[in-house]
Amino acid sequence: MKEIKSKNYSIYFDKNRYNKLFNFIKSRNYSKIFIHLDTNTENLCLNVFINQINKLDYQTIISEAGEENKNIESCVFLWNKLSELKADRKSIIINLGGGVVGDMGGFVASTFKRGVDYVNIPTTLLSMVDASIGGKTGVDLGVLKNQIGTFYDPKMVIIDPLYLETLSDSELASGYAEIFKHSIISKTNNFNSLISKNIDFKNIDLIRESIEIKNNIVLIDKKENKERKALNYGHTLGHAIESYFLKSKKQLLHGEAISIGIILASFISLKKAGLSKNCLKNIKNHILKIYKKISFSENDIQEIIKLLIHDKKNSYGKINFVLVKNIGTPIYDIEVNNDLIIEAFKYYSSI
Amino acid sequence: MKEIKSKNYSIYFDKNRYNKLFNFIKSRNYSKIFIHLDTNTENLCLNVFINQINKLDYQTIISEAGEENKNIESCVFLWNKLSELKADRKSIIINLGGGVVGDMGGFVASTFKRGVDYVNIPTTLLSMVDASIGGKTGVDLGVLKNQIGTFYDPKMVIIDPLYLETLSDSELASGYAEIFKHSIISKTNNFNSLISKNIDFKNIDLIRESIEIKNNIVLIDKKENKERKALNYGHTLGHAIESYFLKSKKQLLHGEAISIGIILASFISLKKAGLSKNCLKNIKNHILKIYKKISFSENDIQEIIKLLIHDKKNSYGKINFVLVKNIGTPIYDIEVNNDLIIEAFKYYSSI
Repeated sequence: MKEIKSKNYSIYFDKNRYNKLFNFIKSRNYSKIFIHLDTNTENLCLNVFINQINKLDYQTIISEAGEENKNIESCVFLWNKLSELKADRKSIIINLGGGVVGDMGGFVASTFKRGVDYVNIPTTLLSMVDASIGGKTGVDLGVLKNQIGTFYDPKMVIIDPLYLETLSDSELASGYAEIFKHSIISKTNNFNSLISKNIDFKNIDLIRESIEIKNNIVLIDKKENKERKALNYGHTLGHAIESYFLKSKKQLLHGEAISIGIILASFISLKKAGLSKNCLKNIKNHILKIYKKISFSENDIQEIIKLLIHDKKNSYGKINFVLVKNIGTPIYDIEVNNDLIIEAFKYYSSI
Repeated sequence: MKEIKSKNYSIYFDKNRYNKLFNFIKSRNYSKIFIHLDTNTENLCLNVFINQINKLDYQTIISEAGEENKNIESCVFLWNKLSELKADRKSIIINLGGGVVGDMGGFVASTFKRGVDYVNIPTTLLSMVDASIGGKTGVDLGVLKNQIGTFYDPKMVIIDPLYLETLSDSELASGYAEIFKHSIISKTNNFNSLISKNIDFKNIDLIRESIEIKNNIVLIDKKENKERKALNYGHTLGHAIESYFLKSKKQLLHGEAISIGIILASFISLKKAGLSKNCLKNIKNHILKIYKKISFSENDIQEIIKLLIHDKKNSYGKINFVLVKNIGTPIYDIEVNNDLIIEAFKYYSSI
């Protein structure tokens, strides 16, 4: 299966991928190799990786698993660990894990001694099709997601569906939300193909196709000044919902929150961007087929709206949305007022 | 006085500089303007600045003054402050202060929401001729200087000697160490001119000339893969000396530590790179004219050598030095063993 080329790195899918990594590392003559894991992937994925590439002389650095640990305190731990282990500018970090490991490991790599090289080996579906691609790194600041971060490309990304065997069904479904989002902002036939069948979340063709959509957008607009904003479809409210529930007992997986955000954004698209009723219905039905519905109290909705103001994508204190006029035709920087947001939540409650 | 152009920004010296800044800010239509100060420059420099540019609608964010506060905890405070004040991606930060304000403010700017614009207005001689130029940002990690940081250019640098009136003689002398270092690695006539006269540390021509030397080197090699390493002349040991004394009562200013590092590097240059005895003597005499001598115990020297291993510039666990074959001909990545370092300290003690 052919690699996907980004500007400064490639994403490898085929059987030769670990050889590519091994040869790359040898050719660069790195002084030290660090595998960055979390407490989950240390147990579940490290052996899988080492079985594929057993000639590496590496040391591990381990983060606590979980989005709640994707913060500066964890970075301080990692920076200190790298210092203790005498990492230098010629060291390389291999992030083996989900979005938290990749985002945080990428941020640590981008800032340790003003930047060392890193490689992403995503082990969750979510990070395969989203976080590991596109050079965004970051950690949360309190409840504010990815408030601190950099744009800093990996040297290579390796996609191996073998790691997906370690995931629960709900984790796989969570990753699928981004695949579905990619289809909404790309082409009608991608979208129609997804809604017309039962999805095998571990299908490598599905994964590669989705990465290709994201990569093509990033190639046009890496710094998210224009076109890349489309990738935030469903995320303005989705992020706020995720942040809000992070503080409560009812924790939602990222993709579960985003799937709600997609329905809300699609309702708003119907009202403000001319999205057809039929499209909204198809989006809603497909999401309800996969994700359970969540109930929101009036207070929940007010608190979520308060969190929106902190979304990175909002400038000048306005709430900006990505909407779709139709499948494949996103528009961005669309200001949406609170009343319409509340109406969208009411629609979601009614379905 | 003509501006100096770097790759992505310019450094302004003439009377029109504040108009340039004002017009730049207006043209970019920033959503919010933050002036980043420390507790010293808030008292000493903010009014000077505001008198020059009184039409700005700004908010201040204040760090605790002092190198000991150039750390991640202070960044967390600043990131949270920016979040509270609803800073967004279209905000700009104006760093008004010395190296700590600029380095830390630049790092905060480079990482807040994956990067916002910033401007440097250095208020110390040290930051005018060094930290504010060249796009290096960073904070310390424990005693390890600038261990965490990024390469991230300001949008503009403004040099105004008026701020130098707020400095003590020893702070001015500290800044001069970098001016003298620039002369050693650039041209014989710069060097000869400095050692042959009494220096006016506030002379704008002297400052501009020194910035130009640094800027020309950065233009060739921003990421410090090769030529930029020359700017670390005197810094390998200078940084370690500074770090070591940071933990003790006998605190040294940055330039005071660097001036010792320059003598040590020059002695090592005599031994390993063919620097003439006469050159070493000229360097030593010029430095002793300006800076007081410091005594080092055997234990001090051992502890300083231990700190060297953590210097960012050292790869593969080796201690790499910048040396000079002659004035204006630096060489870099020269491995120096501990015995020669100890010998250099003995030379310093003997002078």
